[in-house]
Amino acid sequence: MDILAICEANNVPLTPITFLKRASECYPNRTSIIYKQTHFTWPQTYDRCCRLAAALLSLNITRNDIVSILSPNVPAMYEMHFAIPMTGAILNPINTRLDAKTIAIILRHAQPKILFVDHEFAPLTQEVLHLLPFDDSKPKPLIIFINDMDSTTKHSSKELDYEGLIRRGDPTPSLSTSMFCVRNEHDPISLNYTSGTTADPKGVVISHRGAYLSALSTIMNWEMKLSPVYLWTLPMFHANGWSHTWAVAALGGTNVCLRNVTAPEIYKNISSYGVTHMSCVPTVLKFLLEGDRNDRSHRSRPVHVLTGGSSPPAALLKKVEQLGFQVLHGYGLTETSGPVYL
Amino acid sequence: MDILAICEANNVPLTPITFLKRASECYPNRTSIIYKQTHFTWPQTYDRCCRLAAALLSLNITRNDIVSILSPNVPAMYEMHFAIPMTGAILNPINTRLDAKTIAIILRHAQPKILFVDHEFAPLTQEVLHLLPFDDSKPKPLIIFINDMDSTTKHSSKELDYEGLIRRGDPTPSLSTSMFCVRNEHDPISLNYTSGTTADPKGVVISHRGAYLSALSTIMNWEMKLSPVYLWTLPMFHANGWSHTWAVAALGGTNVCLRNVTAPEIYKNISSYGVTHMSCVPTVLKFLLEGDRNDRSHRSRPVHVLTGGSSPPAALLKKVEQLGFQVLHGYGLTETSGPVYL
Repeated sequence: MDILAICEANNVPLTPITFLKRASECYPNRTSIIYKQTHFTWPQTYDRCCRLAAALLSLNITRNDIVSILSPNVPAMYEMHFAIPMTGAILNPINTRLDAKTIAIILRHAQPKILFVDHEFAPLTQEVLHLLPFDDSKPKPLIIFINDMDSTTKHSSKELDYEGLIRRGDPTPSLSTSMFCVRNEHDPISLNYTSGTTADPKGVVISHRGAYLSALSTIMNWEMKLSPVYLWTLPMFHANGWSHTWAVAALGGTNVCLRNVTAPEIYKNISSYGVTHMSCVPTVLKFLLEGDRNDRSHRSRPVHVLTGGSSPPAALLKKVEQLGFQVLHGYGLTETSGPVYL
Repeated sequence: MDILAICEANNVPLTPITFLKRASECYPNRTSIIYKQTHFTWPQTYDRCCRLAAALLSLNITRNDIVSILSPNVPAMYEMHFAIPMTGAILNPINTRLDAKTIAIILRHAQPKILFVDHEFAPLTQEVLHLLPFDDSKPKPLIIFINDMDSTTKHSSKELDYEGLIRRGDPTPSLSTSMFCVRNEHDPISLNYTSGTTADPKGVVISHRGAYLSALSTIMNWEMKLSPVYLWTLPMFHANGWSHTWAVAALGGTNVCLRNVTAPEIYKNISSYGVTHMSCVPTVLKFLLEGDRNDRSHRSRPVHVLTGGSSPPAALLKKVEQLGFQVLHGYGLTETSGPVYL
């Protein structure tokens, strides 16, 4: 079933959340997400997103509400790129490398109803919350912690956490269907802030239509084939992972999630799962040279790397390509809604 | 420059005619069209389409007018997929294999202001026109003949022909710019008729938005890379060549045009121009078995073949694949606006 043709036939608004439902139907046996011991298929990811969206609706999340996230590239971060906009709300992924003061500026401006926090950033969040004066006009967001699914040390176990929310979500069939019907394709899907290098972070609003087209633009210009295996070396908080969050779903690919980006982790995942694509800043390209120097010429498929930000030196590119990586250099700003290819 | 991002940024309507301008800027040295001795680059194709559109405007063609075409896969047929909608008019490519009576039914229904006729179909057109009662309420369309550029025998040399129209077109810069600004992406770009196997042909209206999305759908699902070399074995009058007319422009590819589809012509063009993609009905797959049996395993790239219509027998597919063709089977109807991939 081809969602592009169907969108047009029914004049359905363009939104990348339709990629999720399509992936669950067209690629029912493909692995959607891998993270440590956790492996999901596309139907499981679809089910989890529907449950989370239903739970958010039960928490009175509604159209154009902001839901902020402080998280590394774990499955929850990926799922929320679909589940939050499925409710009509706007996701706001926050750069976890910012200091407490800058994050406080973002929260004061975005005024989220809910803030999802990965357990790793619980101390940072405490620091941020102390900086913010909450009152009736600017109420404190509901904090929901994300614990690793196979972690033994649970944070805030007495409170509602991410997995608890998914368990309690009850998506009726009609609710699940309506969640894929965005009212207007120009509605916001994501609120992304610039890094604040020149001034306070500035908010950039991405529309459902913009996200959809940006995902297709990447597929076309990076020449991505169906069912890629995508290693998450680029933070999803960077302009929604340059829209690759949604592009991987459009292609029925596999998301290999990484909490920490290190050379051994990158090489282990490439070898274990047959990674075909990854994106990163030039700094991560340098990591690749530090890693193993094993011959990977036997690999039937090269690893395609999309890099952006500062221009990597020619010598670095040459060395990385000798290791079996095919590097494409893109250009982008948070404001340009995904990378632009020249 | 990425047209997808730009369309969104400026909230420009989605239309595949923007692919042409982008190709002329992003792929200035790539060959756009090959036909016999004629070779054009993308800037040349862009210039010719702007000239033709300007000439059509000077003939009082305006928004939502119908311009019909009876033509094989020659450069004019390709160019008119851009030049006609650039004026706001709607192209109506007619199946040249229909009999005069059926074509007359289409013309009576579509009521074109202009009918472009390739010289090969001049006798058929005479037959069709004799069947039609024209009067003030249903005026006879202006007939414009298309002669092969390198042909020595010109038809209707005293009258205005296609190349004469291009020569007389005067696209001012502001006119050329405005021709890429479709007012509403839901406006029709093409009026295609079904083949009339079950009843009189039925008209199907394709919108600019639908054509744009259908082109991108093909790129994604057929896994087309940038700069393909596309051999036109599928008639462009079949649902705008399953939207591949526009997809090839989006990718800055090369259109290898064919007046007659025969095995020697197919193999000659594959060998001369390094064809990467072609589309056809299963009958043409049979032609491939009749052609040369030379070993093509030395080819660095296989020829990707998209086939549709009736299902080709497994034995035929196997034999064709042994010849170095990679076959994908799609499904489509004129009504579905390009093929659908399952």
